[in-house]
This record gives sequence, structure tokens and C-alpha cells, in this order.
Amino acid sequence: MTHPDFQPCTRTRTPPATRIVTLPGDYGQTDFVMRRGGRLQQVQVGYETWGTLSRNQDNAVLIFTGLSPTAHAASNSEDDTAGWWEYMVGPGKAIDTDRFYIVCVNSLGGCFGTTGPSSIDPATGEPYNITFPELSIEDIAKAGHHALHELGVDHLHAVVGPSMGGMSALAYALQYPDELDYLIVISAACRALPFTIAMRSLQREIVRCDPHWEGGNYKSNADFCGMRLARKLGLMSYRAAQEWRQRFNRARVPSHRASKDPFGIEFEVESYLEHNAKKFVDAFDANSYLYLSRAMDLFDVAEHGGTVNAGLALIQAKKTLVIGVTTDILFPLEQQVEIADGLRKAGREVEMVELESIQGHDSFLVDAERFSPVMQDFLAER
Amino acid sequence: MTHPDFQPCTRTRTPPATRIVTLPGDYGQTDFVMRRGGRLQQVQVGYETWGTLSRNQDNAVLIFTGLSPTAHAASNSEDDTAGWWEYMVGPGKAIDTDRFYIVCVNSLGGCFGTTGPSSIDPATGEPYNITFPELSIEDIAKAGHHALHELGVDHLHAVVGPSMGGMSALAYALQYPDELDYLIVISAACRALPFTIAMRSLQREIVRCDPHWEGGNYKSNADFCGMRLARKLGLMSYRAAQEWRQRFNRARVPSHRASKDPFGIEFEVESYLEHNAKKFVDAFDANSYLYLSRAMDLFDVAEHGGTVNAGLALIQAKKTLVIGVTTDILFPLEQQVEIADGLRKAGREVEMVELESIQGHDSFLVDAERFSPVMQDFLAER
Repeated sequence: MTHPDFQPCTRTRTPPATRIVTLPGDYGQTDFVMRRGGRLQQVQVGYETWGTLSRNQDNAVLIFTGLSPTAHAASNSEDDTAGWWEYMVGPGKAIDTDRFYIVCVNSLGGCFGTTGPSSIDPATGEPYNITFPELSIEDIAKAGHHALHELGVDHLHAVVGPSMGGMSALAYALQYPDELDYLIVISAACRALPFTIAMRSLQREIVRCDPHWEGGNYKSNADFCGMRLARKLGLMSYRAAQEWRQRFNRARVPSHRASKDPFGIEFEVESYLEHNAKKFVDAFDANSYLYLSRAMDLFDVAEHGGTVNAGLALIQAKKTLVIGVTTDILFPLEQQVEIADGLRKAGREVEMVELESIQGHDSFLVDAERFSPVMQDFLAER
Repeated sequence: MTHPDFQPCTRTRTPPATRIVTLPGDYGQTDFVMRRGGRLQQVQVGYETWGTLSRNQDNAVLIFTGLSPTAHAASNSEDDTAGWWEYMVGPGKAIDTDRFYIVCVNSLGGCFGTTGPSSIDPATGEPYNITFPELSIEDIAKAGHHALHELGVDHLHAVVGPSMGGMSALAYALQYPDELDYLIVISAACRALPFTIAMRSLQREIVRCDPHWEGGNYKSNADFCGMRLARKLGLMSYRAAQEWRQRFNRARVPSHRASKDPFGIEFEVESYLEHNAKKFVDAFDANSYLYLSRAMDLFDVAEHGGTVNAGLALIQAKKTLVIGVTTDILFPLEQQVEIADGLRKAGREVEMVELESIQGHDSFLVDAERFSPVMQDFLAER
């Protein structure tokens, strides 16, 4: 199914089990038409699968990811390394690979097998970089939708998404209301609040201000200070002050690891951020970061129907599970409550779960103890 | 009282009413000895005053500032422009200039008349830049203390400080326990938490990663992207998400002000940050920013006595007023409660006030309605 012209991103490494499907374009067209203007040809979507599609095709689950993960949500027969949601996806796990046919897609605009700014523009033979058209969350949902159709899936048992993936799942349910039974939205929002916009806008500006970025035409991730610092800011918004207080408090790095620079690393919390930010810089395209980050700022359910509640009323899922975390500063709990309340006002069935995880926005990645049973119970019943 | 060799900071503009006092050094020495090593000669402290010192010298109030303000806390006869605490300091106001002799000092390490990294090192004839010795909050308190002695004040009615100034006020009370009657600590902490350290560490790294900084030897503030972005991050930590939601929500800038750049300014919250950050870059020395910011990370009351509570037990003030704000993410309310509890455990009299201001850490600058009466009542009674 891999397109012969497929050009992998030159700046990142797509996981070995990620397969590629090339979309035929929007139905009746050869182009993939972007919501905010612009078109793409030969859109490719990187995806991984687990389990087997049932004969009557009633067991497909689509997972959208947050901003940075690949389609490798969990280990599988082709790649036994742990995925980003390893505790959630597998035999007998909450998203049960013995029962469901699970597809996880890399988001449009990303850099792990799916067309994005680092892909080659067929019109020029060069990477799009910032000539990539403006990206919306709705485009990400559409690319996922079209990819599933190419895989022979016309109807989903469930669409699941955490963080940006939760926005993509909402956008899927808004655009294809009849094509899913259940919707699971985790630590997401109908639209970003100004603090969140500011956090992300500043990350983008830190990248753009680094001369290394070269107006989008940067050559390598090495020594990309702006990306490293932007990621640190991202990480600060993903976790919670309470967790860091427990985990690091004011612990200093041992003297052999401490910087000799008077403004270098002294505290363990600084060392933790440095370590994690460095890992990211080596693995992610800066321009994908800009496009995906901005798509989240721009997403607004109110664009579908005039108000948030009018938008939510378009969603036809039989039941929606909304999960929020009390320590999340990026998509605060009130934003998950807004989704649940809006759906209820429209007469939809909703289960709203507030979790007291201490890991902030990132809790869904790490707090298996709280997240697993909620997901397990919801999916086991239907 | 201005020292004949006074060299104003070349990169900032000291307010017109700020006078300079040169310290004789630590008592019995010609040098000002820094807590963490190193010495300074001819330390100068920029200060402004309001009101008149009483004959028996029992009405002096010392104000320490946060990281960025000058000594111009309020308008006075020499400078009628509004100061940073204009609502608080003046005739009949909470810090009543008809009753008190008020001195506000620019912090050691700063850049508004007080010796700091942008001052000329007498040993080289060049600015210290990052050869300035490691700065501690205790050094800031000591410089304030020595300056007051030079002004003929040996005992203070009260020491007042918000934010970093609150740390300086604590350090004053720790180092000179018999030389003050009352202590007022606003939105400060005994020591910084890891989230706060990370916030400030990242600001410093954003400055240092900008090639414009030139390893500390930068020549001008113009086009100093790193300083502008660091300040944006600072501003994000000073305010509160709730305030921005009320104030900006998702308002867009009008099209004539919007950027044509696809990643440029679109939302009003971005425009607000840009405007305020630009103002700051033109007015503050990058190296002062680094030194003062790090001094806050390193400050720890537990260095005085082994534990926070042992340190607080050294404070002898007749009564301490501690004010905290529920929306403060930089110095969360629990940190003011820690100060109050520690003092109470040591048998000290404390008034702890929790204010529900919506402006986060910066509330003391803007929420006159809540802050004035608390300060007025506390000071009027004594």
C-alpha cells in the first residue's frame, strides 16, 4: 500500500511498523482540499494497526494522537518496542486488541509517515517547509477519515483521542457524525483558552527567533536551540507543579553533573527538562511543530454552527466519554466539563470523568492506574 | 550623596528622582562581601524617598521591589510620573507619606542606579557583565540595609516587599532581626518550587541562547529577541489564566494590526504580550535579569538554621503581615501559608491574608481595591 513516490521525512525517523496509505484526494477530486485554503496532492498517511477487522466491520477503533507521538501507540508483531500508549492498547487491555481492530494515524502536518511540512512538495521536488498550506484540526480529522476508508473501514465503533487527538476526534465527529458509534475525548477542549494560546504562541516564536530555523528552511535538528527551548516550555505546560514538587522539589544535580556555567543546570528539574527536550529535538520536525501547534490554537467547535453548543449538538455519537484531569493547566478541567455539558444540553448521552492524576495534561500517557479502568469500563459495556 | 565616580548603567535609564548612595563596604572592611563568594568595591544603591524621618527615627519604612521595578515606587516632588506602586504610597495612602519616611531601593544586581552587572567594574573599567559575582537575595537585603544606615536610619518601623522584594524583606529580617519592628511579605516564598525554578531557568536560557547576548557582552537592547521572549514567559507566570480568559478570551487582533506572517500575531493575548515584552527589552539589562532571576531560585530560608521553620524562628518582628493571592502560579498561596505557619510555630504574631485577586502574582501591582485596605489596616494600627 506504500506509494512508490513516498519520500520519508528527512529530519525524523518514522517507526518501522508504520505503514503508509496514499489518499486519492477528496471524493470526486484529485486534490485534498484544506479547510483554510490550499490543496495537497498525493497525501500520505502513516498508520499502525492492531487486531483484526471483523467481517461485518463493526469493531474498528481509530486513535488520533497528541501533537508529538507517532502512530506507534503500542508494540505489535512488526515492532516490539513499547508505544506511547502501551498500557492502553493490547490483548485484554482497555483498548483490547483481541476484540477491536485498532488503527492509530500520524496526524496530517506531522512528520512520522504522514504528509507534512517536511514532506516533498510534488510541485517543486523540495520540502514544503512553510509553504505547506494552513493546517486545521478538521484537516487532520479528514486525513484520518480518508485513510480509514482506504483501509476499507466505512464506520467506526469508536474514535479516541487525547490532547490534540481529542480535538481531532471532536472534529471527526463533527464532520462525519453518522460514521462513528462512540466518541472518547481525553484532556482536550472545544477551543483553546488565551493562556494556552500564549503558551503555544511563545513556543512557536522561540523556534522562529532562532537563526538556525532559517525562515523554515533549516537543514538539521542538531544544535537547534529554539526547538529545545520550545519543547521545554511545552513540557512545562504538559505536567503539573504538584508532581514536580513531589518528584524534584529543590533537589540539586550531583556536582559531577552540574554545569560549571553560573547559569547552567543546578536543579534536578532543570536536568529533567534538558534531557527530555534534547530527545525531542532529535526526533521532530520544527515546521510540523509550528503547524500542529497553531492548528490547536485555531480550532474552535463554534465554527461548526455558530456557538460551541451548536457545534456540539451536531455530534451524533451514541455515547461520549469525556475524561479530564484536575491538575491540567493546558486544557483545564472546565474545558472538558464544557464538552460534556454541551453534549448533554443537546440531549446526547455523556459520561464525564474527572481524574485526580498529579501529572497534569500528560496524565493520560502515564497514569495507567486511573485511566485504564475508566476506558476499560466504557468500552467493555459497548 | 552621589558618588563622584558614579557611572550610570549604559543600557537602561535610571529614573530622574533616583539618588545614589555609595556604601563604605561591610563594617570594618572596605569591600562589600558577597554571600556566595566574591567582593564588590564602591557599591552604589539607587533609592527614592517620600516623607520625613521623625526626630526619634521611628517612622522609617523600607520597600524592596520585585525583579524589574526601579526605586520609583510613587511620584514625588522630583518626579511626578506615576510609580510602580502609586496607589500604595502617598499622602493618606496605605503606606502614608504624611506619617512615614519611606525609602525604596533598587536591588543590588539591578540596573536602575544600583551596582549590577551593567555597572563599570572599577578593576577593569569595563562593565562586569557576567563577571559580576554570584548574587543572593541576602546580598540584596544587605545592600538595602547598608544604604539605610548611610541615610542615617538604624532601625525600621517596617520592611515591606512584594515578590522578589518579599524574599529580600525576609532576608532582611533574618539578617538584622533586631533592626525592624514590622515585616510585610507579599506574594513571596521561603524558597522557590521546581515549577517556578523551571519557569525562570527557561527564561534565562532563552536569553543566553540568543546569539545577540554574546556570552553576556551584548552591546544594545535593540532587536534582542531572547530578552523579548524571556519577558513574555515571565509575564505568563506573573498573570493568571482566569484574568486572560475574562480580558481576552479568543479575541482576534483587527486585520490592520494582524501579522501577514502565518505564525505571526493573530490573537489579542499575543498582541498584549508583544507590547509589554517590547517595553521591557528597551528598559532592562539582560545580565541583571539573569542574576536577579537566579538569586530567586537559590534563595532558601532553610539556609538560615537548617530548616525553613528554624530559619523563620530567627525572625523577631513584633508582627508580620503575609499576603498571598489565590490565582498566583509563581508563588502559590501555599507558600505564603508556609511563611505564616512557620512564624506562628515559632510563637510570632502573624496576620495571614488570602486575597482572591484575579491578576495572579502581579495582583499587588494592580489590585488596589483588595490590597490597599489590608495594608492600610495593618499599618494604621501600629
